[in-house]
Amino acid sequence: MSKGGFQNVRGTRDFYPDELRQREWLFDHFRAVASRFAFEQVDAPMLEPAELFIRKAGEEIVDQLYHFELHDRHLALRPEFTPSLARMVQARAGGLRLPLRWFSIPQCWRYERMTRGRKREHYQWNMDIWGEPSVTAEAELISACFQLFDAVGLDRQHVTLKVNSRALVEEALRAGPLRDRPEAFAPLCVIIDKIAKIGPDAVTDQLTDAGGLVRLTPGAAADVIAMLGATHLDDAAQHAPKGSEPLAEIRRLFDLLDAYGVADSVCFDAATVRGLAYYTGIVFEAFDTEGTLRSICGGGRYDRLLETLGGPPLPAAGFGMGDVVLSELLADKGLLPNLPLAIDAVVFALEEAERPAAVRLAERLRREGQRVDLVLGLPRLKRVMADADKSGAARVWLIGPDEAARGVATVRDLASGEQREEKLTS
Amino acid sequence: MSKGGFQNVRGTRDFYPDELRQREWLFDHFRAVASRFAFEQVDAPMLEPAELFIRKAGEEIVDQLYHFELHDRHLALRPEFTPSLARMVQARAGGLRLPLRWFSIPQCWRYERMTRGRKREHYQWNMDIWGEPSVTAEAELISACFQLFDAVGLDRQHVTLKVNSRALVEEALRAGPLRDRPEAFAPLCVIIDKIAKIGPDAVTDQLTDAGGLVRLTPGAAADVIAMLGATHLDDAAQHAPKGSEPLAEIRRLFDLLDAYGVADSVCFDAATVRGLAYYTGIVFEAFDTEGTLRSICGGGRYDRLLETLGGPPLPAAGFGMGDVVLSELLADKGLLPNLPLAIDAVVFALEEAERPAAVRLAERLRREGQRVDLVLGLPRLKRVMADADKSGAARVWLIGPDEAARGVATVRDLASGEQREEKLTS
Repeated sequence: MSKGGFQNVRGTRDFYPDELRQREWLFDHFRAVASRFAFEQVDAPMLEPAELFIRKAGEEIVDQLYHFELHDRHLALRPEFTPSLARMVQARAGGLRLPLRWFSIPQCWRYERMTRGRKREHYQWNMDIWGEPSVTAEAELISACFQLFDAVGLDRQHVTLKVNSRALVEEALRAGPLRDRPEAFAPLCVIIDKIAKIGPDAVTDQLTDAGGLVRLTPGAAADVIAMLGATHLDDAAQHAPKGSEPLAEIRRLFDLLDAYGVADSVCFDAATVRGLAYYTGIVFEAFDTEGTLRSICGGGRYDRLLETLGGPPLPAAGFGMGDVVLSELLADKGLLPNLPLAIDAVVFALEEAERPAAVRLAERLRREGQRVDLVLGLPRLKRVMADADKSGAARVWLIGPDEAARGVATVRDLASGEQREEKLTS
Repeated sequence: MSKGGFQNVRGTRDFYPDELRQREWLFDHFRAVASRFAFEQVDAPMLEPAELFIRKAGEEIVDQLYHFELHDRHLALRPEFTPSLARMVQARAGGLRLPLRWFSIPQCWRYERMTRGRKREHYQWNMDIWGEPSVTAEAELISACFQLFDAVGLDRQHVTLKVNSRALVEEALRAGPLRDRPEAFAPLCVIIDKIAKIGPDAVTDQLTDAGGLVRLTPGAAADVIAMLGATHLDDAAQHAPKGSEPLAEIRRLFDLLDAYGVADSVCFDAATVRGLAYYTGIVFEAFDTEGTLRSICGGGRYDRLLETLGGPPLPAAGFGMGDVVLSELLADKGLLPNLPLAIDAVVFALEEAERPAAVRLAERLRREGQRVDLVLGLPRLKRVMADADKSGAARVWLIGPDEAARGVATVRDLASGEQREEKLTS
């Protein structure tokens, strides 16, 4: 034990009452938006078989896994929720009415260097749709992200959502640099995802690394990077073959987003590929418009995840939105509320003899649904009134010897300062 | 990976929508009762320094710790919340307004043999009061347990709460078998706590074990067991010295419980000592009256915990109530509700051309706060209506070519079967 007592594990958060109320405020918005989209909440254990999360495409999320051997099992704290969700879907495959619309707010863990907006744990709002193959699912999910932004007071100008299609990128690459090497596509995306963080030179190094998973020639790597510079769909479309299905799909997505009324805040970005290996189609990521924070949320289509886990094919799409980055952004914009403890009544027996009467009164008020702070000790009246003021209580009920003798309590309204007597029922 | 795909870790639970709704129903009651007592919610990470939980009194909870080395640190999944709470109080000691009234609903982990009502994880409602030395705190906590039982529909006859005072037991033992051996008291309680499970003979063996922490003579062990057979306070009082403060305290507690209106469901039981080493005063435990399940909740006073963790002395009392045992009991009594997904509206475009109109309608209804299931594919109308019925939706909004041409939707009320048209605003 250190001299100053125990510390929490580095990178983790304690939630004191003020912080917990902010967290619940945010979670309530997550739940309210999900509910308006008729999504049902689910949950899974934070501890899972480590194998569920281990993929071999060079993803950060796998390198940063909190995993360990325990009782001869290789276990991990979940770094993300999607594999657990896939496990749950698979366990009841056939018995579930499709499409599924499930949401969750799991705590997820990553062992990594801490930076602004990134700790070693965060809570992540997930919304996922299983069983719907068309981009109507992605449009619905993106619309839910914007309803959340609206609900917490983020203006459309504060947030930009970038959209791309991995299928579109893959189609172009398979016609060129990745001909006959489909297995290199997922690791390529994992590398490209880092471009904003590590720059094009470092990305080129990794794409051309002879010992890596992608192994492009320098010329091919340059082509890929140039191609992913497109920020207009029409530019990207030039790489697509005639009658490209992925191209038609992403155009249709933009049409749907228009109907949802969010198209103005969404832009195409060919470099947005996401750092998770399992995405197969549309991918998207939202950022603060000023670009000072990590991504606020990210998601996409992952039609083959269930198969890679040994299940039947089942199309799926979803997103995750972390509480840490979002809270940073809200704090920056002055949108994170300070929520006080709400108390209806403070009940105070001035002397020990009146305590049973105070207990009975508190009990009665609580049965009526009031939030009652029953003073447990015998502090001085002055202290009780000061504390009641600080805690924002609405009323103080006082029972002293005089009140008790007459079977009443003195009720003081703290806002108006008015005082009256009320009969105590026994 | 096993042939049938991944399994969740043994002893852990997935929460599918039906189960999650039941869990939230229970948590909502936890939160509502805590709020009526003016308690504030807090939370801490599930991962803590293992040392925080390791005590050397032979407790089951320590033997069953999920702990491991990771990145050169000895970490553990919390088996209970109280030590984390103590860590949080200590970190801000001096800056916190006393008494603190905090509640939490943490998930806790124990690696143990699974039996009915016990898995390897459970959620535990905790209510704790810090900074109040008198039994008014315990009375408040016990009253909250009963308000919870009432809220979920458990009659007073379904639940019995047993109360004892470790201080009373200690006082009697220090005058006899434990004279000059205060360190043996906590391990003695840990052993006594098992008496209902392993029987008096096994308890005697452990109390007299020459290699153990208690090391009583057989005669002294027999005295202890006889003494703890008392189920009336007056019997236990015979072992108390004149002017016993612990005796006065527990009598006062019963008086207070009378004022709270719960005394009829509370009984004294000298053998209730609790299996955690840190309790110092009043202890209590609630059981289903038929005695078929493990304890529903347990708690007590732990005035010296903060000191043992290196902090200042600060009186405290609290309880934990697990969701697994409570849910078992509620299920047995037919009190666990089946809660359906609540949907206000299903919105369905009969053909692809009407989808944008359906999207705009769904968007509008959601902005009004309605829970809207927007049909994402193009199933047949019959299937949509059947699904809407199954999901308990209130209304179905249909937009076909005919409706679209006239700028309306057909709205069918599923309860009444009535149908009308409503104008679509653009």
